[in-house]
Amino acid sequence: MDLGTGPMMAAEYQARRQRLLPPEEPSAPVLLVGTHNAVAARIAEEAGFDGCWVSSLEISATKGIPDRNLLGAKEMIDVAQTIRSATTLPVVVDCDNGYGTDLAAARVARELHLSGVTGMCIEDSAFPKRNSLIKSVDRSLESREAFAGRVARARAATGDDFVIVARTEALIAGLPLDDAIDRAQSYAEAGADIVVVHSNGGEVDDLWEIAKKWTGPARLASIPTAYTDVTLDELGHAGYGMVVYANHLLRGALATMTRLAAQLRRGGQLSALTGLAPIQEVLRLSGEPGVAAA
Amino acid sequence: MDLGTGPMMAAEYQARRQRLLPPEEPSAPVLLVGTHNAVAARIAEEAGFDGCWVSSLEISATKGIPDRNLLGAKEMIDVAQTIRSATTLPVVVDCDNGYGTDLAAARVARELHLSGVTGMCIEDSAFPKRNSLIKSVDRSLESREAFAGRVARARAATGDDFVIVARTEALIAGLPLDDAIDRAQSYAEAGADIVVVHSNGGEVDDLWEIAKKWTGPARLASIPTAYTDVTLDELGHAGYGMVVYANHLLRGALATMTRLAAQLRRGGQLSALTGLAPIQEVLRLSGEPGVAAA
Amino acid sequence: MDLGTGPMMAAEYQARRQRLLPPEEPSAPVLLVGTHNAVAARIAEEAGFDGCWVSSLEISATKGIPDRNLLGAKEMIDVAQTIRSATTLPVVVDCDNGYGTDLAAARVARELHLSGVTGMCIEDSAFPKRNSLIKSVDRSLESREAFAGRVARARAATGDDFVIVARTEALIAGLPLDDAIDRAQSYAEAGADIVVVHSNGGEVDDLWEIAKKWTGPARLASIPTAYTDVTLDELGHAGYGMVVYANHLLRGALATMTRLAAQLRRGGQLSALTGLAPIQEVLRLSGEPGVAAA
Amino acid sequence: MDLGTGPMMAAEYQARRQRLLPPEEPSAPVLLVGTHNAVAARIAEEAGFDGCWVSSLEISATKGIPDRNLLGAKEMIDVAQTIRSATTLPVVVDCDNGYGTDLAAARVARELHLSGVTGMCIEDSAFPKRNSLIKSVDRSLESREAFAGRVARARAATGDDFVIVARTEALIAGLPLDDAIDRAQSYAEAGADIVVVHSNGGEVDDLWEIAKKWTGPARLASIPTAYTDVTLDELGHAGYGMVVYANHLLRGALATMTRLAAQLRRGGQLSALTGLAPIQEVLRLSGEPGVAAA
Repeated sequence: MDLGTGPMMAAEYQARRQRLLPPEEPSAPVLLVGTHNAVAARIAEEAGFDGCWVSSLEISATKGIPDRNLLGAKEMIDVAQTIRSATTLPVVVDCDNGYGTDLAAARVARELHLSGVTGMCIEDSAFPKRNSLIKSVDRSLESREAFAGRVARARAATGDDFVIVARTEALIAGLPLDDAIDRAQSYAEAGADIVVVHSNGGEVDDLWEIAKKWTGPARLASIPTAYTDVTLDELGHAGYGMVVYANHLLRGALATMTRLAAQLRRGGQLSALTGLAPIQEVLRLSGEPGVAAA
Repeated sequence: MDLGTGPMMAAEYQARRQRLLPPEEPSAPVLLVGTHNAVAARIAEEAGFDGCWVSSLEISATKGIPDRNLLGAKEMIDVAQTIRSATTLPVVVDCDNGYGTDLAAARVARELHLSGVTGMCIEDSAFPKRNSLIKSVDRSLESREAFAGRVARARAATGDDFVIVARTEALIAGLPLDDAIDRAQSYAEAGADIVVVHSNGGEVDDLWEIAKKWTGPARLASIPTAYTDVTLDELGHAGYGMVVYANHLLRGALATMTRLAAQLRRGGQLSALTGLAPIQEVLRLSGEPGVAAA
Repeated sequence: MDLGTGPMMAAEYQARRQRLLPPEEPSAPVLLVGTHNAVAARIAEEAGFDGCWVSSLEISATKGIPDRNLLGAKEMIDVAQTIRSATTLPVVVDCDNGYGTDLAAARVARELHLSGVTGMCIEDSAFPKRNSLIKSVDRSLESREAFAGRVARARAATGDDFVIVARTEALIAGLPLDDAIDRAQSYAEAGADIVVVHSNGGEVDDLWEIAKKWTGPARLASIPTAYTDVTLDELGHAGYGMVVYANHLLRGALATMTRLAAQLRRGGQLSALTGLAPIQEVLRLSGEPGVAAA
Repeated sequence: MDLGTGPMMAAEYQARRQRLLPPEEPSAPVLLVGTHNAVAARIAEEAGFDGCWVSSLEISATKGIPDRNLLGAKEMIDVAQTIRSATTLPVVVDCDNGYGTDLAAARVARELHLSGVTGMCIEDSAFPKRNSLIKSVDRSLESREAFAGRVARARAATGDDFVIVARTEALIAGLPLDDAIDRAQSYAEAGADIVVVHSNGGEVDDLWEIAKKWTGPARLASIPTAYTDVTLDELGHAGYGMVVYANHLLRGALATMTRLAAQLRRGGQLSALTGLAPIQEVLRLSGEPGVAAA
């Protein structure tokens, strides 16, 4: 098919996609960072990240709601569109369990794809999902077959150029590692480009064990929130082709805002505040024409 | 009219309104802070602020767009609703010039009021507005009469319990102080509860001069971004009944995210990051049931 | 509590509430009609209806998606807000099963209430809900206790002046009438103001049997889509205090648009089209100032 | 650039684009119809139209607001996305004057393009626009140069494959035909693919005169609302390559809803209503899986 004289959108889409999923196995992991709004995405791009991760925990927090399938597909699509317009990076949206049904997962996949968003992540937690970082919660999963079917539905709804990340919460739910790997394998066969065998135990050997056992037809990604002593290089050498730092920018912002709020409330001189970006930097990052870098 | 057995919403609305606009002149200025999302609003509430300011500069930045009347009324209403649900504080929305027409101003006023938002601020800049912190821009204003009419339209659309802040950009546009005061006077007579004679020159005497000359039937508020050596007490003693720190939380968040993004991009150990709120704090601030304070 | 000088919003809220739920048992049923957008709501108000019903089937259709819990809370809130601004009638939103969890139901109740929407309906279908007019589908319900708990959560989130309609799908799911009545009784005791024992069988005796057996502390409503030979008077005499014609305006619009589209496609003279509202009527219904009725 | 194995989105985008703007001059005009929601779009597709027109008058009406630049870019983008997901037809969005500034016009163009929407129309009315069907209103226009600049900005923001329709309101504003043609010529040179020399006088000779004088490098489109005796064939023979029936489906829907609302309010038997689509048809048009045509 002839794309004619001006396939700007198609070219732009493909450039983002190839940064997220390089045709050749990359020498270092593709590195994504959680960006909870457009200005965080611009900061991520300037810092050299390879992509933006739109985290359901982060977006739930910015909306003041618990991370429990309260956030709807439309709200995530809106945030994702705002971010994809603000950056040239690929954008991957954390869509929980695909909003609970195969049809919902297929629909959000198609909406994101039509909207120029590069990819999405879905996980095999049953509706309603619970955040994986909360301890001592009963968790139930969709069956392996059912969730592989959901991945296949999302793939069928989008074609090959939308990037699908499938994540199993099997380890979080207390299943053995082999079951988790089997699930990831099924999801890869059903059409996922990338799989995450998610873990939050903090036992770093889990990460290496997962990578060693992985032989499936999809790249392996890690979201190492709980593994605070592991480096990007180590993850890359172990075999992870993608790494996501999912919530650190927001956590830094919250700590800083908490500190500043306390100081501001005392009503002293504004000149005594430290750690503020200048107004010019706010203007620059918001895209104000003619404002140079601070 | 009998409000019957359960006027929860009405009581809640009035509690917010009275915190924003106490029946008696307050001993210290009512203090608002710019909150660009629900989690910033929760931080503001915990820090003891009297209200949330939804700033068009801040919200423009989070959406990655310049602060030039690109942000629409619907987008601001959405953010304001998210914030009013996340906090018990009054919420005041910075509605630029009311989106350029009297009808638009009246409509957004009514929408905010019906949505349980406590108040809004409109300014007398002509469409399209330019951010007041940008230097060397030609600025034009609505005429005094025209803008007083706009204030009156917004008042008529909402009744007495919606709080209207009218802001004149006269000093920003280079008009003499007396003209600015005259404008504020007209806006107060047209129905504004609070007026702002906005200034960004950094000449602190302007602030005292404005307060000294003000005799109108509305409280006086200051948004002292450019006056970094002035304290809340000084503003209160001069006669300001409300103070707004409009953009400091976001500026702190941006600086912190920029620092963290650079460090994260290097891919070292996450444990080396400093200044992060713990995950439990993110969960708590997002309203996760059963998660205690960090 | 003193509501001060201007409780316009509170008065407006209560006026809508009292039309929806008159303090005295009304002599004729309160009559609601499905309105899928603001202009339908204006038509409903001019025709003399007592309220607007925001139907999940109708709104799903306008968005081109099946009525299967794909429509999110935020999307329904947006439509409900648009309609409550366009009319002085009470607005009741059909919120399916409360979006699948108690927390989601409580949240949407609070959001609607804070937004000046008069009430909502929730039903005891398990997630994902299926439209009650589709035949031959396996249906499962939340348990009676679980759903009564959901009603209680929504009530606790809103206080007494938000109107809660609880609907049992027990008959649709094939349960006996007595079970359906027991469920409705539990939901009324948990805080519903109005209950619907929904039925689509077309056996008109069901309607009379339900009304005869009902003794609970809530008014009884009927959504008689399938009972095309029953009149409003008959429903009122039987004991129904509210009736909802949930989908007829949209069905008329679809039929007319289908007819017109076929004729328009042939490209003949526009003057040959019949059954068009004049442009002046479109302008008038959209609220264009100065345009009188057609 | 190699689009690889799966350029589904790119192919889909181009298929829509080519239907809207066939590489060869079409033998009959490309025919668009105003579709104010997704179900209207499905009806349009089934009737054989070549594309969906998202009219600011129609969408304003569905939101209950006058057609006077109250409707924001974000709200139109939302509707356009809903429609582009519901149909395979090209979608063209009526963006008024581009929301009043060059920057706003460029932004909405890029957002629509990134969202898979095929094109937009902008007109040279000054902010705030007034609906062209309202008589006796003072109208002002952007200057020819200024508006040509706006077209060029939108083009630069999107590349060649986004379709830009530029519309001059010169005749509506009382300017001579030659001025109107000159304006259209400038807009075509600035990058518009299609131009509309809009007219609502009802003098059919205007239509022929415009077409006869048009020699510019863009196709000519007509929105013949006021020319009710003209046929599609006549417009095609005169040289119009595109025709838009912008508001007829909504006008039919309004008339039908008004008639039905009056009858429904009387509370008689539902079986006495005429002109209703069956429930099965609502389900089918909403995309309910497994529901065949009525």
